[in-house]
Amino acid sequence: MRAALALAARGLGSTWPNPSVGCVIVRDGRVVGRGHTRPGGRPHAETEALRAAAGQTRGATAYVTLEPCCHWGRTPPCTDALIAAGVARVVVALRDPDPRVDGVGLQRLRDAGIAVEVGLLEEEARRVNAGFVKRLARGLPMVTLKLATTLDGRIATRTGESQWITGPEARRMAHALRGCHDAVMAGSGTLLADDPELTCRLPGYAALPTVRVIADARLRTPPGGRLFSSEAPAWIATRPGHDPAARAALEGRGASFIEVPPAQGGGLEPEALLRALAARGITRLMVEGGAVLAASLLRAGLVDRLAWFVAPSLIGGDGRSGLESLGVGGLDSMLRLRITGRRLAGECWLVEADLLPGPTPSSRAPG
Amino acid sequence: MRAALALAARGLGSTWPNPSVGCVIVRDGRVVGRGHTRPGGRPHAETEALRAAAGQTRGATAYVTLEPCCHWGRTPPCTDALIAAGVARVVVALRDPDPRVDGVGLQRLRDAGIAVEVGLLEEEARRVNAGFVKRLARGLPMVTLKLATTLDGRIATRTGESQWITGPEARRMAHALRGCHDAVMAGSGTLLADDPELTCRLPGYAALPTVRVIADARLRTPPGGRLFSSEAPAWIATRPGHDPAARAALEGRGASFIEVPPAQGGGLEPEALLRALAARGITRLMVEGGAVLAASLLRAGLVDRLAWFVAPSLIGGDGRSGLESLGVGGLDSMLRLRITGRRLAGECWLVEADLLPGPTPSSRAPG
Repeated sequence: MRAALALAARGLGSTWPNPSVGCVIVRDGRVVGRGHTRPGGRPHAETEALRAAAGQTRGATAYVTLEPCCHWGRTPPCTDALIAAGVARVVVALRDPDPRVDGVGLQRLRDAGIAVEVGLLEEEARRVNAGFVKRLARGLPMVTLKLATTLDGRIATRTGESQWITGPEARRMAHALRGCHDAVMAGSGTLLADDPELTCRLPGYAALPTVRVIADARLRTPPGGRLFSSEAPAWIATRPGHDPAARAALEGRGASFIEVPPAQGGGLEPEALLRALAARGITRLMVEGGAVLAASLLRAGLVDRLAWFVAPSLIGGDGRSGLESLGVGGLDSMLRLRITGRRLAGECWLVEADLLPGPTPSSRAPG
Repeated sequence: MRAALALAARGLGSTWPNPSVGCVIVRDGRVVGRGHTRPGGRPHAETEALRAAAGQTRGATAYVTLEPCCHWGRTPPCTDALIAAGVARVVVALRDPDPRVDGVGLQRLRDAGIAVEVGLLEEEARRVNAGFVKRLARGLPMVTLKLATTLDGRIATRTGESQWITGPEARRMAHALRGCHDAVMAGSGTLLADDPELTCRLPGYAALPTVRVIADARLRTPPGGRLFSSEAPAWIATRPGHDPAARAALEGRGASFIEVPPAQGGGLEPEALLRALAARGITRLMVEGGAVLAASLLRAGLVDRLAWFVAPSLIGGDGRSGLESLGVGGLDSMLRLRITGRRLAGECWLVEADLLPGPTPSSRAPG
């Protein structure tokens, strides 16, 4: 099942709105087939693994990270394929929360006389499928907030100089992170300051280009920016009521628009923004800043994970912070993290963490 | 020699103004004696190791982290003790830069027919002896700046709440750090905010109490503070010309005074402050903040090492920074670090780093 989970992780970022699933088929103690969901979500992992194991599936055990589908979609149900292949036993990590499946797939396998077990490495499978599960359960994408700062938490000097605080290895790892998310989002301030392309420019990640989302309440995105030098989709989230000519200019460059109600005090209403992205199928969203957008999502309790690159340098207290105010008054409303990884990235390092649940600062009275 | 260096490290913080030296005596491939400089600087490591090896020193090899002394101080010279013990070979990591020794000790051993080698693990010995060497060479102590912040570099919320951001393990490690420095320094703002005792309250570190230094240009130290609840020395560094009655009140509580010229723009002139401490014998100084004092030392290029505790939490951009302005305009004047260690401290972690030499921001025109 660990091998199946590793296969599933390979597909992250390229299967949305479908989950990325891994499947390993074992017969007589030997792996005879492996598969994971292909880019775009089809073929499914089971189909791939059964194809690889052709002729050796009778009596075999299939390890699948998510309950096999039992409904006709663009492909026939995987349950039927497993039954037809004569598989004797299916081990599933996580039951599929999709209401079209949700236990029916397991039942169909059992009805066909296949031994079915559920729950092996379930927590790990829930982590891999976090985006898919959160979108189904709550209508929101899983959100990873990426930051790159000095050891003292600065993203730029007081004059705004920011390129580059982190080294080439950290930037490559950040590109790889983009590649395993469905969409990458930045605020228009970041776009104006850095003119980023927001694509994953690493070999092997080209299968399904990552969507670029600009949170741009004031419609400041420049039609001539590097954002539009890529073929990857560019979505501009903005409030309703902008000048149609300005929109048309950006649409002419390939942008598509998402209308989101404005937030009190400026910007876009953060939860409405994320719901609009989930409605379009986004399950895994990486947020790249700036400090205002990042803080607004943290304040609203909408960030699941942090990917924080720390450079071995100091800028000092007049440099620009990676995060604007989180509305934290007392230490009891400080945001708490569970560290899930610390990895070297050249001379920098990457701290990976989950946001722990707790009272969100925005729900508290100002301290 | 590694064992001798580990012994030397044990004495750090309790031998000033003397170096902490380690000595291991080996005969026939077996360790027959170990020693390190005792609290207060006497007896010396060689005396301790020879005493432990009594009767087994003839023909032995002595590994010493620093060139043995050859002059009469409060104790007879160690060179004479090694010669009298019949040691056949002496391996020295680092030549003693003290002008009273500086090669003369080595020569005296050679003249007595002892085989002498110098330079084994010299870099490591230079690190252990960094405070002793820097004080002799430059009239300044080695400075370790300790900080404890959230992942986003904050030492307190906007309301000033700071206790505790780090957990008990990190605080214990910070106490151990105090214990291996000769003196601990804080600014008067930190004293007023936190009322710290600034002592090392861990078992096994009581040998020589760490000196507490308050950088207090405006003489705000409260005579009733917890600083004076300890017997350990309390030194107040301030500018000349304060009300004698205010000084007398603090002297009555046990404080002694160091006069330092004021800096332009407030505070004390940082290099003069450190020179005054070195003149009193301090070789290893740990600076605990606040943000103004820390930044003034960093700007002046007077910090050698960082000990940065990072807590798994976020406060946000309106929290208080661990460092005030470092005068960094462009990224080329950013302070650069060489990471020397990353250690877990409960849920927090400790990043240890050397400041890399480079243009100090204060020597540059404002960006």
